[in-house]
Amino acid sequence: MKTLALAGGVGGAKLAAGLQAALPDGDLATVVNTADDFTLWGLHISPDLDTVMYTLAGLANPQTGWGIAEDSSAALSMLGRYGEDTWFKLGDKDLATHVLRTGRLRAGATLTEVTAGLAAALGVRGAVFPMCDERVSTIVHTPEGPLEFQDYFVRRRQKDEVRGVELRGIESARVPRSVSEALDGTGLVVFCPSNPVVSIGPILAVPGMAEALKAASAPKVAVSPIVGGRALKGPADRMMASLGSEVSAAGVARMYKGLVNGMVIDRRDEADQEEIEDFGMRVLLTDAVMRDEPDRERLAREVLEFGGTLGVGTEAR
Amino acid sequence: MKTLALAGGVGGAKLAAGLQAALPDGDLATVVNTADDFTLWGLHISPDLDTVMYTLAGLANPQTGWGIAEDSSAALSMLGRYGEDTWFKLGDKDLATHVLRTGRLRAGATLTEVTAGLAAALGVRGAVFPMCDERVSTIVHTPEGPLEFQDYFVRRRQKDEVRGVELRGIESARVPRSVSEALDGTGLVVFCPSNPVVSIGPILAVPGMAEALKAASAPKVAVSPIVGGRALKGPADRMMASLGSEVSAAGVARMYKGLVNGMVIDRRDEADQEEIEDFGMRVLLTDAVMRDEPDRERLAREVLEFGGTLGVGTEAR
Repeated sequence: MKTLALAGGVGGAKLAAGLQAALPDGDLATVVNTADDFTLWGLHISPDLDTVMYTLAGLANPQTGWGIAEDSSAALSMLGRYGEDTWFKLGDKDLATHVLRTGRLRAGATLTEVTAGLAAALGVRGAVFPMCDERVSTIVHTPEGPLEFQDYFVRRRQKDEVRGVELRGIESARVPRSVSEALDGTGLVVFCPSNPVVSIGPILAVPGMAEALKAASAPKVAVSPIVGGRALKGPADRMMASLGSEVSAAGVARMYKGLVNGMVIDRRDEADQEEIEDFGMRVLLTDAVMRDEPDRERLAREVLEFGGTLGVGTEAR
Repeated sequence: MKTLALAGGVGGAKLAAGLQAALPDGDLATVVNTADDFTLWGLHISPDLDTVMYTLAGLANPQTGWGIAEDSSAALSMLGRYGEDTWFKLGDKDLATHVLRTGRLRAGATLTEVTAGLAAALGVRGAVFPMCDERVSTIVHTPEGPLEFQDYFVRRRQKDEVRGVELRGIESARVPRSVSEALDGTGLVVFCPSNPVVSIGPILAVPGMAEALKAASAPKVAVSPIVGGRALKGPADRMMASLGSEVSAAGVARMYKGLVNGMVIDRRDEADQEEIEDFGMRVLLTDAVMRDEPDRERLAREVLEFGGTLGVGTEAR
């Protein structure tokens, strides 16, 4: 079954890798958040695209989830020697990705084209699509003022209270043709367990994306990144709380109301089931935590099976 | 004595380092060939500027003379994995230089400004100036057609017969103000033992450069890169031969006729002395080969002393 996954960073990439392992080669297409893309030393850095691509290629650093396994940092140390601020941990192999991407974008290729070329060269078995080819920037509004996402996320280690999230440039973004076509041909859409505010949120905010998802006949399943009232990784819980969302699987489901037909939540969140069903969604209770590679494939197979039971044409209310 | 050196790659960088060691801090300014600059993966690479800068900073790879000592090549291996041709041996630390230079140039700085910032950060004791801020490209005409310099020099290992050398863009180049000012205040100009065709040649070909050198009151001394009828390094001998120059210290002197007052040549080229003196130049016979760091400083001190004997206002014929 052709499957379209929506993903942000590490958690989303893990489930995408599980789906890739569970599906025949070429049956997975992953649409990735690019709103945390930024420019550093003139290089176009796409943190989520890289995390997804490296993970699908089997190259990701297993300790961090991002970056490339066994990468070195000679270039970064040299940048430090030049007096540069080295808060963004750039590996040497990783740097090659940014250099190639930037060079090809400057030469006129779209981010969709560049990503396809990089992912294919790394042996990714399936498509990796940026959510759009236009530049969108997540700005996190905090008591200290507006912060670029990587500034908030990496440099300031998510210590600031989040008062609002702005997607600068989103009004000019468009759903890439590659994404529309993949959506048309897909049998299932999976919202990976990524941050619903700053990973899945920007994808859904691309003008026309939510409408296209609603119009698609394929069932849509979301996997909750909140388990037992906490984010499995990252600041999703603190962000949801400070933005007024309930920090729970039901809170995530509420954000996807009208868009998804089924929620996959952890067994320890069983108490949320009834509320989620009231949103018009079916619920799969399982072990929603991916501890290792077999876990990713196990969860992916459960998601695919659950999606299959939702049936084509099931309407989200 | 304030000294202005003209230099290309490895040989020139070695004498510049000797001059830096022999002179008080800040008394050396080095004007460097940039006609072999090129763009690779969207990065502005300045091979000669980097060789001079790394050598003056004490960072140069002692085995090759270019690149940074003990550098790694993780990024290059990743570029290879992406299917890129990796004939240009790019170290990881070296890559940091290209990334910063490119980013700062794109942000609007001149190559002069960028180079000053990089060299200062690396602790270079003196000024390093590009020969111009405009883009000039050495094109080597061969039986196989025109080749970009790095293509001829690195990728094809100088195997092609050189039928002509073109300096594309040189007509739009201008002597940077920093170079004019350094020349005005200098007590001696040293033509380092770099390739007279493709290293010193382009510097002298910047419109106004040769005239400014002629007009300067400081004596000018050239150190021959040809010793015993052969280039100490690189293709200078083959280039000179195929372009119709005599491959000898006298052949080099002939190319600098009217510009320099003194030639420093190796003792084994004593037979050339008379011919060189006939060009109106004084000659210093010495050991012109720099085998190690003490040798660089020894030769530099001899050059400085010899330059001092030429006297201010000595006219080159």
